[in-house]
Amino acid sequence: MPRLARYLPILDWGRQYDRETLTSDLVAAVIVTIMLIPQSLAYAMLAGLPPEMGLYASVLPIVVYALFGTSRALAVGPVAVASLMTGAAAGSIAAQGSPEYVGAAIVLALLSGLFLAGIGFLKLGFVANFLSHPVISGFVTASGILIAASQVRHILGVKGEGATLIDMIGALWTHLGETNVWTLAIGVAAIAFLTWVRSGLKPLLVRAGLSGRLAGILAKTGPVMAVVATTLAVWAFGLDAAGVPVVGDIPRGLPPLALPEIDPELWGRLFGAAVLISIIGFVESVSVAQTFAAKRRQRISPDQELIGLGAANIASSFSGGFPVTGGFSRSVVNFDAGAETPAAGAFTAVGIALATLFLTPLLHFLPKATLAATIIVAVLTLVDFSILRRAWTYSKADFAAVMATILVTLGWGVEAGVTTGVALSVALHLYKTSRPHIAEVGQVPGTEHFRNIRRHKVLTEPNVLTVRIDESLYFANARFLEDFIQERVVPDCGIEHVVLMCSAINDIDLSALESLEAINHRLSDMGITLNLSEVKGPVMDRLERSHFLSEMTGRVFLSQYAAAAELSARHPAQSPDAGRRAAE
Amino acid sequence: MPRLARYLPILDWGRQYDRETLTSDLVAAVIVTIMLIPQSLAYAMLAGLPPEMGLYASVLPIVVYALFGTSRALAVGPVAVASLMTGAAAGSIAAQGSPEYVGAAIVLALLSGLFLAGIGFLKLGFVANFLSHPVISGFVTASGILIAASQVRHILGVKGEGATLIDMIGALWTHLGETNVWTLAIGVAAIAFLTWVRSGLKPLLVRAGLSGRLAGILAKTGPVMAVVATTLAVWAFGLDAAGVPVVGDIPRGLPPLALPEIDPELWGRLFGAAVLISIIGFVESVSVAQTFAAKRRQRISPDQELIGLGAANIASSFSGGFPVTGGFSRSVVNFDAGAETPAAGAFTAVGIALATLFLTPLLHFLPKATLAATIIVAVLTLVDFSILRRAWTYSKADFAAVMATILVTLGWGVEAGVTTGVALSVALHLYKTSRPHIAEVGQVPGTEHFRNIRRHKVLTEPNVLTVRIDESLYFANARFLEDFIQERVVPDCGIEHVVLMCSAINDIDLSALESLEAINHRLSDMGITLNLSEVKGPVMDRLERSHFLSEMTGRVFLSQYAAAAELSARHPAQSPDAGRRAAE
Repeated sequence: MPRLARYLPILDWGRQYDRETLTSDLVAAVIVTIMLIPQSLAYAMLAGLPPEMGLYASVLPIVVYALFGTSRALAVGPVAVASLMTGAAAGSIAAQGSPEYVGAAIVLALLSGLFLAGIGFLKLGFVANFLSHPVISGFVTASGILIAASQVRHILGVKGEGATLIDMIGALWTHLGETNVWTLAIGVAAIAFLTWVRSGLKPLLVRAGLSGRLAGILAKTGPVMAVVATTLAVWAFGLDAAGVPVVGDIPRGLPPLALPEIDPELWGRLFGAAVLISIIGFVESVSVAQTFAAKRRQRISPDQELIGLGAANIASSFSGGFPVTGGFSRSVVNFDAGAETPAAGAFTAVGIALATLFLTPLLHFLPKATLAATIIVAVLTLVDFSILRRAWTYSKADFAAVMATILVTLGWGVEAGVTTGVALSVALHLYKTSRPHIAEVGQVPGTEHFRNIRRHKVLTEPNVLTVRIDESLYFANARFLEDFIQERVVPDCGIEHVVLMCSAINDIDLSALESLEAINHRLSDMGITLNLSEVKGPVMDRLERSHFLSEMTGRVFLSQYAAAAELSARHPAQSPDAGRRAAE
Repeated sequence: MPRLARYLPILDWGRQYDRETLTSDLVAAVIVTIMLIPQSLAYAMLAGLPPEMGLYASVLPIVVYALFGTSRALAVGPVAVASLMTGAAAGSIAAQGSPEYVGAAIVLALLSGLFLAGIGFLKLGFVANFLSHPVISGFVTASGILIAASQVRHILGVKGEGATLIDMIGALWTHLGETNVWTLAIGVAAIAFLTWVRSGLKPLLVRAGLSGRLAGILAKTGPVMAVVATTLAVWAFGLDAAGVPVVGDIPRGLPPLALPEIDPELWGRLFGAAVLISIIGFVESVSVAQTFAAKRRQRISPDQELIGLGAANIASSFSGGFPVTGGFSRSVVNFDAGAETPAAGAFTAVGIALATLFLTPLLHFLPKATLAATIIVAVLTLVDFSILRRAWTYSKADFAAVMATILVTLGWGVEAGVTTGVALSVALHLYKTSRPHIAEVGQVPGTEHFRNIRRHKVLTEPNVLTVRIDESLYFANARFLEDFIQERVVPDCGIEHVVLMCSAINDIDLSALESLEAINHRLSDMGITLNLSEVKGPVMDRLERSHFLSEMTGRVFLSQYAAAAELSARHPAQSPDAGRRAAE
């Protein structure tokens, strides 16, 4: 691939663009636009921002992603979890509704964009790997609950904000008496309708004679139907005068281009949140993108995706939006509707831009309860506690990380939750590797294999102790090996030779090298030699750069079999060609 | 070993105690006492504390360690690095010389003790492993420089304190004009004498007809000679009136027993420092203890050592002392002087207690410059930059960790330095394992071995891709494998089967399992099967608890040879018994 095309994938797919691709992309764009309008408004409300910001975040970012992104199906825009995190971070700077709050959200998009593009250019995308799958699952589940809980107040038509589940429940309880029945009626009806649409509409349409694919796509327009119906109801019956909160006037016009606030102190306070929003968004996006890419045997480049998403966020920031990323549900729609290239995204952007120009007056009477219903029904599908059961059966360490992530997210908020999850999973991984499995091995009779003496009937020599360490040797487990050998050798006076079988050792760091030196000296003080067997090439290369091999009292053997044949007091009788093989 | 004896090792060695052991222990105790008196005074001064606290820290802690510790040679008391850290932590609470400063040092000893004993009882001693050897070396070197720099003001007889090297140099520069020539003369003479004693006295004594061992022990009494000579000089010539700072009146009497301050807020502020002091002290002690234990084929129990050192620190705190740990140089003296059991330590404690009762008036005229000279000469032996060269040749990651530790310790102080070192070495380790070595392998002709196609001439089948991952699969590298396989498979349309050779995989966590599932699905979408070979027992046990094996499109093969024989399009002709072996 030419160099420029690596950074501008449009040069790659743009050259093969034809009328047929155009048609597919246009159809997909229309469908995604219809779906995206209520979503954009809803996620802006979730982030505590004016509704038009949701629309702004769905125009320029999509176009920019189309230029720089590598996924041909990923649809970029505001998503639920990132919106919740944006609200939490902006809320720590200023009160919702203030210009400072809006400014903070815009700065968050800029910082996210700079961070993503930065690690993309530096090819540091691996940092995202430290968010383990179980931690993400737990975090998304807990966030789904938090998001749904945060929207209940809109269904009741009362005040009651909060960053944690307990805050929210407390606030709702206080304001429960102020519930507006009209709002509640609209909200409950919308939730019921949207829930039914998810499962009931598609089969109905199929039975009415539509193709499965078309029925599936139409079923995704449920939120738009709910928006139209409830908006008409509020307008027709004047329910806004009866206290039903509505979206109200949305400024008409294209997204305003403006420079985000340059305030180092504010940037410093928001940087941590921006990093978390970016990484969580990136991990979600790249896994969605990779899934779709595999279906069409295409490739995505994770580092280029970072640049694409980073550019999209910078664009969002400069056009009055807030953090965006690739959304799962809208990408599914985009893919199912037949989007072939990122141009489908650009056409979607045009659709949303037209909506901001012409549709906004029609949204005046849109009840906030409908948007809240859309959010609740969407995010409750994210809530999935099955990860707890899976993790419990498979690995207690993973279970602990998931459980901690869920509890801390619900109890202390999103940032604390995801940080705890990452820290705990790293700590547990280090703990596991700091106490590696060490097996004492012996020869399986009649073979050249050496296996654990506790699991197999094997032959051992009284004067040779052979241990296999099932882990790379590094600082966290170096002392563990020292202790193990000291503990094993001191009481057993028959031992003349210790052999470390290194088949599962992929690295030996300097700490471990110093531990090996200490083991060598201590064994030497007891009159015992230290030997190595089956050392891998790269590990051996490195050992040869140190003085260890020349100081070692014993030898390095190519195979464990050669070591045993050489070191045993009595020559092994089981295999007639032992001597020859050992010498090879 | 009976249960009680595990926690009270004295029950073990106490039963075999006889007259001969008593004599050895008594001789060692006298020698160590003589050496310990100036050291204790000097390290109290280094920590910015009154001199008697150094003596207090050398009485009860030694007795308590003798009860609970497992090492028969370790000599416990104030040490240079811990004293420096104590001074830095107490200095963050209150001004040197204030009662709050002294109180903070006493609380630090208590917190260190509780922390060490706590992790000892919970058998969590492995946390100490996260201080890698190179980081400790770098930290000790940088601390040695900091300590030496902090004592220069006592040699000049001026003020000028500071927590970082730059602060210290700045303060010294400001006060340089106030230098007291008498103090400078005493300090420089003491440094010259002590430096000469280190290398020149022993050969001289040997030539005078003393045995090597006795000459070596006498050479260790250099500091005492310097103390006696300079104290007499100050007293005889009335130099204290000429402005030479002296130790002054030291309260006579045994260490006062008192409860440390119970102040949760103060405890909270000192806890982090106490943890660092504890861990660094523990790591040093245990490595000293293990070295001596191996020389006599004895065992030490690291978890019991934690309890022993913890109890010693608690005892220090309750008797007006500050954090203590096992010192290297005094343990060498103890061992060389023939200490056989921890009772030698108890006798040392009696010696120091007698000194606090009867010797303190004689120390009134002891110049601080002499103590500073003792410290400088002792710590400069800790300064050893050779670790930088070693790390550079052996491993760039280790080099980066050492370099960062040294620079941050010198520039930002001890706590920042050691924290940076630990964090960076963990981060670099995770980085390395997040990008594991992945080799595409093929069959070495005429054997059943499979090796890297880039290093060896091997046979491969066009329809089978076999990759060997040289690392356990966990969250940090799971996506790396996904990307590698996607990248490799997409452009190569001939591939029908992918085999993961798992010989170096010691663990597969839930994230990696989900990545394997994703790889399986994506390969399946492309019409390719996923197979595993040479899966280790514990890994297989865990996989069998998941649904993965039933969903996997391919099979699990006992050996890579069996996998290749089964999956290749043309039956391998190289080995006539391939079919039979594969079926085994």
